[in-house]
Amino acid sequence: MKAAVLERPGVIKIEELDKPSPGPGEILVRVKSVGVCGSDIHYYRHGRIGAYVVEKPIILGHESSGEVAEVGEGVNSLRVGDRVSLEPGIPCRKCVFCKTGRYNLCPDVVFMATPPVDGAFVEYVTFPEDFAFKLPDNVSFDEGALIEPLAVGVYASERAGVKPGLSAVVLGAGPIGLVTLQAAKAYGASPVVVLDISDFRLNMARKLGADFVIDSRDTQALEKVLDAVGGGGADLVFEAAGAVPTIQMTTKIAKRGGKVVFIGLSAKDMVDYNVVEVSGKELDVLGIFRYANVYRKAIDMVSAGKIDLKSMITHHFPLERTQDALDLADTKKNEAIKVIVNP
Amino acid sequence: MKAAVLERPGVIKIEELDKPSPGPGEILVRVKSVGVCGSDIHYYRHGRIGAYVVEKPIILGHESSGEVAEVGEGVNSLRVGDRVSLEPGIPCRKCVFCKTGRYNLCPDVVFMATPPVDGAFVEYVTFPEDFAFKLPDNVSFDEGALIEPLAVGVYASERAGVKPGLSAVVLGAGPIGLVTLQAAKAYGASPVVVLDISDFRLNMARKLGADFVIDSRDTQALEKVLDAVGGGGADLVFEAAGAVPTIQMTTKIAKRGGKVVFIGLSAKDMVDYNVVEVSGKELDVLGIFRYANVYRKAIDMVSAGKIDLKSMITHHFPLERTQDALDLADTKKNEAIKVIVNP
Amino acid sequence: MKAAVLERPGVIKIEELDKPSPGPGEILVRVKSVGVCGSDIHYYRHGRIGAYVVEKPIILGHESSGEVAEVGEGVNSLRVGDRVSLEPGIPCRKCVFCKTGRYNLCPDVVFMATPPVDGAFVEYVTFPEDFAFKLPDNVSFDEGALIEPLAVGVYASERAGVKPGLSAVVLGAGPIGLVTLQAAKAYGASPVVVLDISDFRLNMARKLGADFVIDSRDTQALEKVLDAVGGGGADLVFEAAGAVPTIQMTTKIAKRGGKVVFIGLSAKDMVDYNVVEVSGKELDVLGIFRYANVYRKAIDMVSAGKIDLKSMITHHFPLERTQDALDLADTKKNEAIKVIVNP
Amino acid sequence: MKAAVLERPGVIKIEELDKPSPGPGEILVRVKSVGVCGSDIHYYRHGRIGAYVVEKPIILGHESSGEVAEVGEGVNSLRVGDRVSLEPGIPCRKCVFCKTGRYNLCPDVVFMATPPVDGAFVEYVTFPEDFAFKLPDNVSFDEGALIEPLAVGVYASERAGVKPGLSAVVLGAGPIGLVTLQAAKAYGASPVVVLDISDFRLNMARKLGADFVIDSRDTQALEKVLDAVGGGGADLVFEAAGAVPTIQMTTKIAKRGGKVVFIGLSAKDMVDYNVVEVSGKELDVLGIFRYANVYRKAIDMVSAGKIDLKSMITHHFPLERTQDALDLADTKKNEAIKVIVNP
Repeated sequence: MKAAVLERPGVIKIEELDKPSPGPGEILVRVKSVGVCGSDIHYYRHGRIGAYVVEKPIILGHESSGEVAEVGEGVNSLRVGDRVSLEPGIPCRKCVFCKTGRYNLCPDVVFMATPPVDGAFVEYVTFPEDFAFKLPDNVSFDEGALIEPLAVGVYASERAGVKPGLSAVVLGAGPIGLVTLQAAKAYGASPVVVLDISDFRLNMARKLGADFVIDSRDTQALEKVLDAVGGGGADLVFEAAGAVPTIQMTTKIAKRGGKVVFIGLSAKDMVDYNVVEVSGKELDVLGIFRYANVYRKAIDMVSAGKIDLKSMITHHFPLERTQDALDLADTKKNEAIKVIVNP
Repeated sequence: MKAAVLERPGVIKIEELDKPSPGPGEILVRVKSVGVCGSDIHYYRHGRIGAYVVEKPIILGHESSGEVAEVGEGVNSLRVGDRVSLEPGIPCRKCVFCKTGRYNLCPDVVFMATPPVDGAFVEYVTFPEDFAFKLPDNVSFDEGALIEPLAVGVYASERAGVKPGLSAVVLGAGPIGLVTLQAAKAYGASPVVVLDISDFRLNMARKLGADFVIDSRDTQALEKVLDAVGGGGADLVFEAAGAVPTIQMTTKIAKRGGKVVFIGLSAKDMVDYNVVEVSGKELDVLGIFRYANVYRKAIDMVSAGKIDLKSMITHHFPLERTQDALDLADTKKNEAIKVIVNP
Repeated sequence: MKAAVLERPGVIKIEELDKPSPGPGEILVRVKSVGVCGSDIHYYRHGRIGAYVVEKPIILGHESSGEVAEVGEGVNSLRVGDRVSLEPGIPCRKCVFCKTGRYNLCPDVVFMATPPVDGAFVEYVTFPEDFAFKLPDNVSFDEGALIEPLAVGVYASERAGVKPGLSAVVLGAGPIGLVTLQAAKAYGASPVVVLDISDFRLNMARKLGADFVIDSRDTQALEKVLDAVGGGGADLVFEAAGAVPTIQMTTKIAKRGGKVVFIGLSAKDMVDYNVVEVSGKELDVLGIFRYANVYRKAIDMVSAGKIDLKSMITHHFPLERTQDALDLADTKKNEAIKVIVNP
Repeated sequence: MKAAVLERPGVIKIEELDKPSPGPGEILVRVKSVGVCGSDIHYYRHGRIGAYVVEKPIILGHESSGEVAEVGEGVNSLRVGDRVSLEPGIPCRKCVFCKTGRYNLCPDVVFMATPPVDGAFVEYVTFPEDFAFKLPDNVSFDEGALIEPLAVGVYASERAGVKPGLSAVVLGAGPIGLVTLQAAKAYGASPVVVLDISDFRLNMARKLGADFVIDSRDTQALEKVLDAVGGGGADLVFEAAGAVPTIQMTTKIAKRGGKVVFIGLSAKDMVDYNVVEVSGKELDVLGIFRYANVYRKAIDMVSAGKIDLKSMITHHFPLERTQDALDLADTKKNEAIKVIVNP
């Protein structure tokens, strides 16, 4: 089978590898769609993200879907031919985090495309049955791949307790901001306000349901946000840009008793943050690390038409052109919302 | 009646004022004990805390207890002679915060000794019946006054969800750190580790139940804390010092999925904070603004012997020497844990 | 002003009363629409509901809206001419329930049309400003009156924690069942299944968004429900019929770890209930008493088009024909979903 | 090795079986202490509990502790010689209940001494490493065995959200009632009132920390309970007797907004229950099925001296006399609180 292997930073080669075989409880998946994520681009360009370093050739890609090609011993929830979306992190199932429902915090998680674990820019992968989620007929493979970023937005809504009667502001309209916007709407938030610096992205946000979109470079941006949400600030603030100015805006936007959720990974570790406002407004500032227990409901929301993933897909590439896909996603950040590789 | 009036920063004079009369639903309280709080000292020295400015003479003191001297029309839960502790913030009872149980966030709260509202360094005050809590016989007036700072610690335990099986670290062993320590123990946290820079305070912490006390100036302090709590970090971190180094330690001390509670008001608004750790560890960082709905249970815990307030009282002054009380509390911070004025 | 006064069970007379004046913090409301509720019918027919007995003439009606005709001293959130919906229960604002956000449990609540408190089948009422909620232009007076029953459904969704990814079954498609259905949908439940014995009501449920409707007299009803929700049972079961058979179905329908919410008031106090299933499935069985803190969000959901109250209104009567309105609502239970009196 | 095998109802024989070998991730445990539980007695006498039927010889006993005798491949958290308590239910680790932290509801759980799974009245058992919890030196094997019933009480406190400021009533002072009492105290409830029909048990309850004990046959029992807790009823009611009269008392004892927890398995499936009070008081009625995620904290509480299991142990038997142990536990219910078999 063919695989797109990152040989070293900046160089992806198509190689021929042996097709794997599913072990007990595993399935073999013929990969159909793989989304390009910012972390893929980062490993591709820089060879590392924080403590995770690419020390030997690796297959990237962790937003994936495909068709069940074989089933291993003891698999009974899936059959050959089933269409599935793959939740890319497999936890240990034994630690206190796994047992208490927070398996995303499992220190021994094996996560696709996080060195040294291979990902999905390849024709076939084996996978544990219970982390492969069957797709309804009306959810395409491309959408199935994008359940992964959607899971981040859905999980953020779960963590924040989004529900009708709460207002929300999403800072950043990249892929994660756009799924967060959509998840917040599906959970009942109203109004939902989106800020970004790109008109292209703000238009996309408006198309995907934002009640208000605001250019964050506007010197009146904060006033406009507060006007839009009313009531002395937003109940919920989702930081999905990871930039210092938006991180710092969060405490200004949140109302007393409100919640701030850090979704976007900050480019800087240390950020000057208004801790006095955190106390004075009695805020909850909540970190998010990946997601847990949301794949099935994310798929159902797409199937029910509550979430529009298709509009977020701007480009397609075959497996052979994985490197082109990464280059494009990197260089045209504002217009390439989601780039899909189809093995 | 006599009152200790802050004429201007640094000058407190004993004045003769008219004794007030209780209105409908109010009681008249003969003040017996008033604790000196850091905010009293701040107003006394600097004439302001943030946006709150002393613009005309004011009576300070908001940690108070006393005896019911008269009851107004319609009062039926209290009688003359009852001993009471006064919860000093009276909210509007009508806004969304008041109606949803978070009355501490009421924007129209009237809070004792917060300009321009007078406080309790005086012989008599009138007070709404339902914010005056009857003291059991085995809780003294001095302890009744200190229910106020204890309420902060109890509320922090409520916000953090302290319970058996969770470890806690308290940063700072001033009055608020010490009540937080005791509340966390009463709620079942174990172990509870306390850090401070003063041996006197650390000894007090040990006496009041800390399982481990650590000098925060020790270059190995972080390692010692992590050793003491085990399990990759503390479930709960209470920042009760308000200092930049302790604020910054919180993300290092907290375990994955843990909670950080900001209790101490930071001296600086903007603090360089590790937001990447907030995300990567999926922390909850929770602000605290005063307290709500904890007075009755705080009193009950003292009455049941679960909390030791008496040991925290280091000095007493009569009303006439209120200025001396404030001077002492200010200049001997480490040794004067709680200074009480007895009108 | 005119009032429809229940002289004794079965007899309503139109009387001329003095128009009241708003006190401090109160408004005078010119009543525009009043919904007929089952409790009104019960008092009208039987003169009592449990411990509440009609001992002297009373004005019924507690689902109401109107126009502000005068404002009392200190009122600043509303003006003459504002259109408002009235939340009919005014709590004491002082007890532990009021202070902790559960004011619906206040033992001293004054609730419209609950003996001896008069209700809204009258031309004018005075009301506390903060329990009168301004209606947006696109919400009619009739809808404004029906915010009251909707509040029950919204509160049930709040209590149950309805959100995307959870399935729900509503037992009973009377007015309360229909608003519960709609609230559950607005909170994201999917699928939502409704059971009733009336085709008229089931059709209404379908029109209002039910994913499946099932005749509860069908001997296969339980199997059909379980089929419809899948996954071994429903996450959430709302009992909105108050009948013994539907109360008993709840434990059969709920999945392991699911929740049962009793919304409908049972006609019988004591019901044979499967407590072994409550344990074995580890269910949460949650009682509902009226509602708290949901009026504003209920209005917003109607304004945003997420809830359709108009379709539920089947009949209108002028104030003079209040008795006819009650008679019709009583005798044509299945077809008279909501009957409105317009003073 | 020797095993006490239930050949058929009423007949236990000591047999010689092959000593098992630990597989990967498993340990071999030399069993040291096994508590006799009501379910063991039920299988012994009647051969079934509900749907679980003893169809072939089975080894009973699921409250156990022992010493690690061998470790299987890949085991790294335990070593030979470690003293451990065994959590007897091993879930599938893959279903939605396992992944969301509610593994006690896993439909595929393998639970010791639940037909057809063998239990611990035997010299050696193999066990998954992560369900064997290391005992501190100051927790004996006998106490280690009784972590199992204690886990039920601790889990009930978790489900109920016990904390300081809440009053609790425990109905029934059998082993489960007594551990529930102790857990509720350790979580901070006050006062805790215990009811039973046996003086022996009530004395035990008093010794273990009950603030009030009341004979439930007293015609004034309800009044006495309400007097003891004050405030219009108990915040928390734990039904640990499983009898119709105590089940029916729960709604009378609970205060408005209170919680009822069904811990004891009711002898009858259908019980006449006051559903109108569930609604009118807005109660939470919570089922309990075994426990999850509480073993470590239960052990720590025993080690810290917050829970006294030793006083609950009234009798000891060697493995050879397992049948005598079961007979005694059955026939002297009131005085034989916990009977221990030591293989």
